[in-house]
Formats: sequence, C-alpha cells, structure tokens
Amino acid sequence: MKPIDFRSDTVTKPTPAMRRAMAEAEVGDDVYGEDPTVNRLEQRVAERLGLEAALFVPSGTQSNQLAMGLHCRPADEVITEAGSHIVQYEGGAVSALWGIQPLMLPGERGLLTPAQVAEAVRGENIHAPRSRLLSLENTHNKGGGTVWPLERFRAVVEVARKAGLAVHLDGARLFNAEVATGTPASAWAKLADTTSVCFSKGLGAPVGSALVGSAALIREARRLRKRLGGGMRQAGLLAAAALYALEHHVERLAEDHAHTRRLAAGLAELSGVKVEPSQVETNILLVEFTRPASEMVSRLASLGVLLNATGAHTARLVCHLDISAADIDEALSRIRRALES
Amino acid sequence: MKPIDFRSDTVTKPTPAMRRAMAEAEVGDDVYGEDPTVNRLEQRVAERLGLEAALFVPSGTQSNQLAMGLHCRPADEVITEAGSHIVQYEGGAVSALWGIQPLMLPGERGLLTPAQVAEAVRGENIHAPRSRLLSLENTHNKGGGTVWPLERFRAVVEVARKAGLAVHLDGARLFNAEVATGTPASAWAKLADTTSVCFSKGLGAPVGSALVGSAALIREARRLRKRLGGGMRQAGLLAAAALYALEHHVERLAEDHAHTRRLAAGLAELSGVKVEPSQVETNILLVEFTRPASEMVSRLASLGVLLNATGAHTARLVCHLDISAADIDEALSRIRRALES
Amino acid sequence: MKPIDFRSDTVTKPTPAMRRAMAEAEVGDDVYGEDPTVNRLEQRVAERLGLEAALFVPSGTQSNQLAMGLHCRPADEVITEAGSHIVQYEGGAVSALWGIQPLMLPGERGLLTPAQVAEAVRGENIHAPRSRLLSLENTHNKGGGTVWPLERFRAVVEVARKAGLAVHLDGARLFNAEVATGTPASAWAKLADTTSVCFSKGLGAPVGSALVGSAALIREARRLRKRLGGGMRQAGLLAAAALYALEHHVERLAEDHAHTRRLAAGLAELSGVKVEPSQVETNILLVEFTRPASEMVSRLASLGVLLNATGAHTARLVCHLDISAADIDEALSRIRRALES
Amino acid sequence: MKPIDFRSDTVTKPTPAMRRAMAEAEVGDDVYGEDPTVNRLEQRVAERLGLEAALFVPSGTQSNQLAMGLHCRPADEVITEAGSHIVQYEGGAVSALWGIQPLMLPGERGLLTPAQVAEAVRGENIHAPRSRLLSLENTHNKGGGTVWPLERFRAVVEVARKAGLAVHLDGARLFNAEVATGTPASAWAKLADTTSVCFSKGLGAPVGSALVGSAALIREARRLRKRLGGGMRQAGLLAAAALYALEHHVERLAEDHAHTRRLAAGLAELSGVKVEPSQVETNILLVEFTRPASEMVSRLASLGVLLNATGAHTARLVCHLDISAADIDEALSRIRRALES
Repeated sequence: MKPIDFRSDTVTKPTPAMRRAMAEAEVGDDVYGEDPTVNRLEQRVAERLGLEAALFVPSGTQSNQLAMGLHCRPADEVITEAGSHIVQYEGGAVSALWGIQPLMLPGERGLLTPAQVAEAVRGENIHAPRSRLLSLENTHNKGGGTVWPLERFRAVVEVARKAGLAVHLDGARLFNAEVATGTPASAWAKLADTTSVCFSKGLGAPVGSALVGSAALIREARRLRKRLGGGMRQAGLLAAAALYALEHHVERLAEDHAHTRRLAAGLAELSGVKVEPSQVETNILLVEFTRPASEMVSRLASLGVLLNATGAHTARLVCHLDISAADIDEALSRIRRALES
Repeated sequence: MKPIDFRSDTVTKPTPAMRRAMAEAEVGDDVYGEDPTVNRLEQRVAERLGLEAALFVPSGTQSNQLAMGLHCRPADEVITEAGSHIVQYEGGAVSALWGIQPLMLPGERGLLTPAQVAEAVRGENIHAPRSRLLSLENTHNKGGGTVWPLERFRAVVEVARKAGLAVHLDGARLFNAEVATGTPASAWAKLADTTSVCFSKGLGAPVGSALVGSAALIREARRLRKRLGGGMRQAGLLAAAALYALEHHVERLAEDHAHTRRLAAGLAELSGVKVEPSQVETNILLVEFTRPASEMVSRLASLGVLLNATGAHTARLVCHLDISAADIDEALSRIRRALES
Repeated sequence: MKPIDFRSDTVTKPTPAMRRAMAEAEVGDDVYGEDPTVNRLEQRVAERLGLEAALFVPSGTQSNQLAMGLHCRPADEVITEAGSHIVQYEGGAVSALWGIQPLMLPGERGLLTPAQVAEAVRGENIHAPRSRLLSLENTHNKGGGTVWPLERFRAVVEVARKAGLAVHLDGARLFNAEVATGTPASAWAKLADTTSVCFSKGLGAPVGSALVGSAALIREARRLRKRLGGGMRQAGLLAAAALYALEHHVERLAEDHAHTRRLAAGLAELSGVKVEPSQVETNILLVEFTRPASEMVSRLASLGVLLNATGAHTARLVCHLDISAADIDEALSRIRRALES
Repeated sequence: MKPIDFRSDTVTKPTPAMRRAMAEAEVGDDVYGEDPTVNRLEQRVAERLGLEAALFVPSGTQSNQLAMGLHCRPADEVITEAGSHIVQYEGGAVSALWGIQPLMLPGERGLLTPAQVAEAVRGENIHAPRSRLLSLENTHNKGGGTVWPLERFRAVVEVARKAGLAVHLDGARLFNAEVATGTPASAWAKLADTTSVCFSKGLGAPVGSALVGSAALIREARRLRKRLGGGMRQAGLLAAAALYALEHHVERLAEDHAHTRRLAAGLAELSGVKVEPSQVETNILLVEFTRPASEMVSRLASLGVLLNATGAHTARLVCHLDISAADIDEALSRIRRALES
C-alpha cells in the first residue's frame, strides 16, 4: 500500500527532469560568488519578485532569520501574527540569534488588521523594546493556507511604514498566493523590504530558499548567511533544481489547490471530522476530528495516510506535487474507513 | 501648590529616619562580599521569604533579569502574562540579554489559569523554542495591583512543575499582597525557585531590590550581576535604607491600600471617569476617562495631580508613603475640577 | 589558458562519477529524519570517527558553530589558537550566536603547548568569563596545513580535561592528517567530545560537513541546526556526493600532498619567493613574496594562477582534486614568469 | 592590629564629610530624570571631560559595557589590549551581552602602538568579524597604573579613526592620569567617542561611575542602562557622594601616588620581592615574589597586610584614600617580617 503523505509539501521528491537539471548543472564556488547557476537563480528570483537582489540559502528558516537580523538589533521588537512560522517553527531563533523580543498578535486565520498593528506599535520609551519590524506571512501556514488580500496587506504595511517600521514578508508559499489569486507575487513583495520564498515546499525542489530585497540589504545578508553557516560551495546543483521548479512547477500549484478543495469537499460528507470547504484558499486544509488527533494520526498512518496533528483534536493536511487526483480519492476512502472503524 | 504624585510608588523620598540609618551604616566592599549591612539585608530578606539566600541589586529590572538568566538558555521560552513587567517594562532585556523568546498569555487582570499554562507548554520539538520558565507577578502591576490568590498560584505552579518548568515570582510588590491578605510573602515565594522583591516601590527606600532563592542559584546570580554591572562597592549605605524599610514600612502599606480605596470611591462619584472600586486590592487604581488620557494627564498636571496614561483613555494612579489621607481628598477635589472644566 | 586554482580546496567541482551518485540517490525529508542517504552518511561518518552519532550540515562553519553552542553558554570562554578558523573565518559567530568570549593563544604553526593551555585556564572567579571549551584544529589551516602529532594533541587535551573543559576538534581537513601520518582520524576524534569534518574541501564533494559526537550531543545539535536554518529537506542528494567522496577520495589526498611538496620544491629554486619545503605536511603551502602579495596575486591571476594573499607579502596555495601533477609544473612555469617579469 | 588594605582602591569607605553630603542630598526619581543631584553630577562630569552629556550608573563595569553596546552590533570586533578590564574583569559581558568578538593585542604595560592597531584592523570581508571599536584604558590597571602619554594616545586614536572605528576610553582611573601628568582628563576624553570614569575607586565614593559622550549617544545609553537594570530611583544619595569626591578628592590622588612610590622604594630594598620603582606612575604597584604569590598573600594577611595575587609569583598593591604615609611605613615593616620569616 503506497502511503499518501499529507504531512507537508516539503516531502516531495525531485522529479526525473529535475534530477537531470541538477546532474547537468554548471557549478562554481558560491562562497566566492562564482557559481553561475546560483547567480542565475538569484537574478531570476529577484526579477520575478520585482526587487534588486536575492540570496540563495539552505532553508526557509534561514531566509526568514536573515531578514530578522538585517532589520533588527537586540531589544528590538518584531510585530507578527501569533501563529507565524518565525515564532512557532524556527526554534526560538528570533530571540536566540538576534535578541529580538517578538510581539505576537492574535490574527484571524493568520491575518492582522491595520488597527491591530497601529495599536501594537510603541512610541519612544526606554522601558519597552523598540518596535522595529512587521513580519507577515503569505500564504499563512497555521492560518490554513490563507492568502493576504493585496489591499489588506497594503493597508497593514502602510501603518507600519507610518510608524517607521521595516516590513518582512515570509513568502515560503507566496507562489501559492499568486496562483490562487492571479495577483503576481511581486505585488506583495514590492511592498515589503525583504521577502523570503521557498523552493522546497510546493515547488518541489529538494533544498533551498531565497531572500530578496535591495542590493544593499542582500549584500549584508551574505555576511549574516556566512555567520549562520549557510554559505555552501558548489550550490549550483541545488540551485539548478530550484530554477527548474521556478520554471515548471509554479502554474501547476493550481492542481494542488484543486486537490485540496476536492479533499475538503469529500471530508465534509463524512462524520467524525469537521472541515470548512469554503475556507480552502490554497493547498492547506485544517480539520477537526471528534476523536483525539493523536489517535486519528496513528490510525490513519496504519492505513497509509500521513498527516500532522496541530492540537488536541485538530490536524493539517497539505497537498503537493507527489499527490494526484487519484490519491485524493484513495485517501478519502481510507479516511472514511478510519472514521468508521 | 504641592503636587500630589500618583505616577508610581517609586517616587517616594527617603524619610529623615531612613536617611539617618543610611548615614550611620557600617559598610565594606560588597564586590568582595565584605559589606556587613548588605550581608545583613540579604540574610534578613532570605529568612523573611523562607529561602536560603538573597542578593542585593540596584533595581527591580535587574533582579528579574537575573532570574531569567539563571533559569534559561538562549532559545528557551518564558511563559508569562501579556502585561508582565518582564516583557513590558524591562527594555526588551528578556530577549536581548538572554535570547529568551517570551510567550505572553492574555490574563484576567494579570492572572493566568492552570489550563492556560497547561495548554501553552510545548512538548519536545526541535522546531519550537523550549518551554523552560513560568514567570508570575504578584501583585500584578498592569493588572491593577491584583493579588494572586494563594491556591490559584499554587495550582498554576503545579502545572509548571509537572511540565518540568522552573518558576520565577516577580514580587516587586509582594509585601502589598502580604499586607492585603494576611498571607505571608513567604507562602508564595516558597512555591517559586526565585523571587524578586523591591525596596524602592511601596517600601520607600531610595534604591534597590533583592533576588532570593537557593544558595546555589544565588551564587550563580552573583556572577550574572557582575556581568550586568550591578556589583556595587559600599552598597551598605543603600542596604541600610532597605533594612529600615523592611522593618518600618511593611505594615503601613495598609494605609496606602486604604487611600487607594478612598480615592476609588471618590472617583466613582464623578462623571467623566470610570473606576471599579471593587477591583481595588492594593495600592494601584486603574481608571478610564471619557476624554483622551493624554489630555487629562496634562490638565491634571497643571492642577498639581500627577498620573501616568496607560492607553488612549486609561490611566494608572498609585498610592504610597508620600501620599496622606488629606492628599487623597485634595487630589479628589482637583480631579473634580479638571473633569468639570 | 586553463586557470590553475590554488585559492582553496573548496573550489573543486564534482566528478562525473560523483554526479552520477547524486543523480541516483534515494531521498526523503531529512527534517523528519527520513532521508535514507543522509542517515547512511551520518552513520558511516560516526563509525569512521569512532563516535556514536553524526549530523550532516551545509557547511564547515555550521558544524563548528554547532559545537560551540553545544558546549558553551553565554559568557563562557573558548580557548583556541589565534589563527583558528572558528575565530578568523566564521564571521564573528562564536560571540554573535552564543555569547562566547574567545581567548586566542599564539601557537607555533597553529599548535599549542600543554603549558599554554594550563596557564590560560581560569579558576572560579565572578569577574572573568568561565573557561569552558578547548577548540583545536587539525590540520591547522592558517598554520600551513600542520598536523597535530597525536601525543601532543593528547597532552593538550589532558590539560583541558583536568580543568573540566570540553574539547572540540575542527577537523575540516582531518582526513589530510590521517593520510599524511597513517594515524586514523578516529585517534584524534575519540579524544574530543565533538569533531567536525568537511566533505567539500579536499574530499571534493560540492556541499556539506558533519558534526560527530555522542548520541546525546548530536540530538541537541539537531535542535541547534534547526535554529541556524541548517535543516535541509531532500539532502540525500548532497549526502550521496559526500558518501562517494568518503569512499573514493580519502586515500587520494596523498596525491595532493605530493603535489604540494613538488610545488614547494619548485618554488624554493626561484628568487622573489620564500618557502620552507620542510614545513609542508599536507596540501597547504605558505609562501612569502619579496613584492607585495596583492601585486603578485593579480599578476599571477593574469597568467592563470589563482591564489589568496594572507598578509602584506604572504600568500597561501592549496592543492586539491582538480590540480594534477602536470598542473603543478605548468603553474611553476607561470609563477617563474611572474617573478621574473 | 589594623589591617592595611592594598587589594584595591575600591575598598575605601566614605568619609564623614562625604556621608554628610549624602545625608543632605536633594533627591527625585532618576528613572523619570527628576533627581536634581544626579542631574547636577552628570552635568558636572560632562563639563569636566569636555563632552556634551553624562550618565550615572552603578558600576564601572556597567559604564564600560554601555559603551560596548552603543558602538557595536553582534559580530563586531572590539580591538583592545589583552589585559584590559573590559575583557578580563567584566564577566564575559562584552560577548555575552552584545555578541562582540574581542581582539586582544599584547601591549607594553597595557599600552598599544599605532602599528599594532593598524595591522589589527580588518578590511571588508564576510568571513571575519567587523572591526568596529577601539577600546583603551587610562590609567591601565593590569599594566601597573600606566598613563597613556597624550601623543601616543592621539596617534593610536588616529589610526582607528582612519579605519572608521569608534573609540572608547575606559577612564576608571583617568583622574589619576590627570594628577600624575598635569594633563587635564578632558584632553584624552575629547579624542574618544565615549569615556567612562569611576567615582568609587581612587575618588573614594561608595558607589557609581559615569559614561560621558555626545548627547545622542548618552540618550541611547539611558535605554541600554534600563535594559541592564542600572536605572536607580533616588540615586541622588549616591550622586552626592560622587559630587563630593569630584570636588575634594581629585587633587589628593597625588598623595596616593607619592605613597605608591614610597612603597616601591621601600620594597626595592628588601630581598624576596622584585619591584621596578621607576615604573610607578600612579597608585598601582606590581611586585614579583620569590615565593608563590598565594603563599605570600596569606602570610601577609595574617600580618594585617592585604593584597591580591595576579599570577603564580606576582601581586598587585594599590594605594588609596584610606592608606596614610604612616600606613606605608607600617606595611613595609610587616612585609619585611613576612619575607624574612
């Protein structure tokens, strides 16, 4: 029985064509700036997001954390939604690496309002940390793959600008937002100072993320990357896969979104699980089981359906390159069995 | 017109008797551990809180921050109420000095429930910061001088203990809790690993706080104090004032509490300001003005009543050693004038 | 004219056979611990160094820095030779990431004596940082590829042990030491708590290093790796190259050493450059030019010989997989031309 | 037998006149900037050192560390002499609090040469920490109370300026340099960006130091002081003693210098101890015993002479306000006894 793996869109394996691109990649020593494939990828990503420069790094955590380090000094405050990746899934790095005190605002499916941000910003006051950075996530993972409507994003950013804050966009799944809405990724990215994008989530590359921003910021990011041990030598092998993904795997994210809706619709008809099909915007589905999530996760695992619990009764399913329409139907049938047993 | 200063209980000036105690204090070099008055104070405070040892430091911020540094390593998480002094009024130190990522839970007038803490604790997970410390504040300043009922405190601490967390008590105003309830300060302190108390708030000493805990923790705290530049030489001069305060100014906190109730009752009869007299537990009063707080603060200042705004329409008034019953009545009459004009 | 690149052994490009190994690698999501090739590599390296466990990371800087973070808390002191990679080439990470204050002792071609270490260790003293870690480098890059004689290494480690210090071995070029002496790499590694080895230097893999140590330390290192953004997804592609390198490129380091001796001997006959052929122990050659190093570096670059200046008149040449015996002779003839012109 | 305490000039006790000044000091809440005595002291010190502003802090360690934090970001490098207080006696704070990697150059009795600093400064290079700050100490404690000749100081500072570095002066004993040379303290201070001076060393005040610099830097230092827990409330009590010391105890440092010379001359005639009377510049004397220093320290302690060992056979003696000419003669006679027994 072939397992169907909904745990994350990070689990995809490189396709044969992608492996071929890697095998043929021209490389050099990227720490000396001499890897032509890395250089090409960085230029391509920067152009695509409408910014001056980009830096290739080994992970989405590192690209986000470079942004934290670029914008903040110790005792600065980053304002972000409570479920953000930067505070929930980056190992405490925001404080441990940079001495930043995060302020986590409760959002609505991961999104903040301009009023929330306005109220959160602190005036000059030696007793408090210094409000310095607003960090937003699009799509918002913990919110359930939520897309930031561009106008709402713009309004929130404007509040931050007026208060003198820098703005970072965690765009690990920004291309999902692009495909879901037709709004180009650059529309959001151009409003922020820095944006991180990830090649090893929905795009299906094995390894790597990029941070994009102004030439000056990215020059400094190169320093910070070295400090974190993110400088790799013949990284063109990885960059080749990322380039391939960027060229061939963006539009197809629409399939993942369709699969996610199909999965939601199917689950909505079952009892023992609650889903809101209308809330599916991209490739992430949040569900609530009647039974404990941990019990359902292991029961489903034994039936060859993998997913991650996110709370006592809640779980997350993510669709991706390695899940086909047929897999969705098969998964629905296995889940039905698990719920009925 | 003599100003009546409700901004904080930190503004009190040493009494003549306290100055006399300072002038006559026997001193030595405390960095060598040779100041007899400091040593006496440290022993007295430790005994009073039922713990092994204490350390005299220049401020409440420093005593709290020493506790953060004692219990946590970088990327650890401190769980605390959102309005806590350690995250709101200590200049971002919790993250900047120790790399701790704080988790701020919304409390009810500063108090948390056992369920909130239980839910907040994270299991072993390399993606997240490590839950390490629970930090509680008694009385809770931003909550409005709220006292932690001992049983609720015990229940919350038990949840933390079960999860393997250390517990710190920010007891800057712990003696107010003691006087308000009749429960000895040591009852709370013995449940925590470390407790900080402050001599320069309600107790009226000019400078200084203490951190209390086990002998081993306090030995290490001495190292951390040196690192923060908190080691003072002939500190016995300050310790003498603190000793005096500890002996003569604890019981009298009851007067401050009575004054605060009297102030609340008086304000409750005025229009243009909202107070909840039933919520006054100690020496802090939170009020809500109809007009903007900033406007009221400056209008009142011109009438000789000083207070701090805490929000767009809210403000805080604190009673202390330098405010008499007559001052309360005079202040009420000035505030009435300000509200009516 | 084909450039001959002596700048570093990091510039090597993957061989066709290595690329084939990568193209065929079985992969999984390593952040979930499910990449079989990464797992195989980690097991192989741990066995080879005689320790329990290993962790694959994107760079030598990261493997060293994980060790710093494992052994030290802020305000601890690492004792190391003044030219060590950890303090000279890791972007200030030792202090910036972990708050460690390094003590840099002047060595003899990168090696310390037991007496130096004994004298450097501090007793318990709240005024000073806490001596916590000894970090040694074998072979020593800035020292000129110097091998630590095993007995001297053991003697220095013993001093550290007696003082209660942990020991880290930066073994980025440890296999060069093994091949040069016949002493297995594990002989040094077993004396240390942690050892880092690098696959993208002399071994010729495109990307990656490993940290080895006890199972408990490596478990914690996995946490720290996540924090630095070193967790990669289908990293088996890179691990396959490292495995190939470990199997096929260790013994051949002897050729690099022979080439380096041949280069030294050839240069010794030229005027305008000073070398000590007797000091060549592995694949690194330090030279001193009569003319300014910067001038020589650019003059040689125009003749197709690349090297790095290390001081006003000094430079470093490194032999590696992509430099043949014929390249050495050609390089010597080009260098002669540069010196004579 | 009255002990004669040469361990440090920090052990002095406040004189009756100084205590009187404290007892009568007008005070306010300095965290609100309302303590008139603190304000007066800060203004007086700034004027005296020829800079715009000053900040009163609890210790010399804190004033130095504020300067570190003002000038540097994590991964910056401070260049300083190897025996400097900031790296030897401040508990690792330079790295632990600010993430600074110190570069410690071996000086001659604590002094550096322009060439040393020039060579130490690094160019732009992502692999290395960033040279950012030069920190000098005058007089130099570990060097033996050495005074920086003004022209040499100026030459070293010029090298730093040319390289774009900021300059901090640790002037804990700067007034000793002033009195010893007749050069006003401001002559050195005006060449630096920030200078710290200490009131509780030779000046004899019980507690406190000041950091001086531009108004902008000192405004920011106030923020950092809060973060370190150095904000004190009615600190005017301590500032009164510092003001008294500044007015009455500067010129008299000449006596301490004379006593130190007298002590050196006396010891030079004894066997079993080596001193260089010609190297005595201020109030610090370094000696070398034939017998182990630890043995001599305890033997002398039993005879009522206190001093600190600084090495296996070396020790330091410091003269100060509480040591009279008669004490010197008595100490010499006791030391003679200890050496002869």
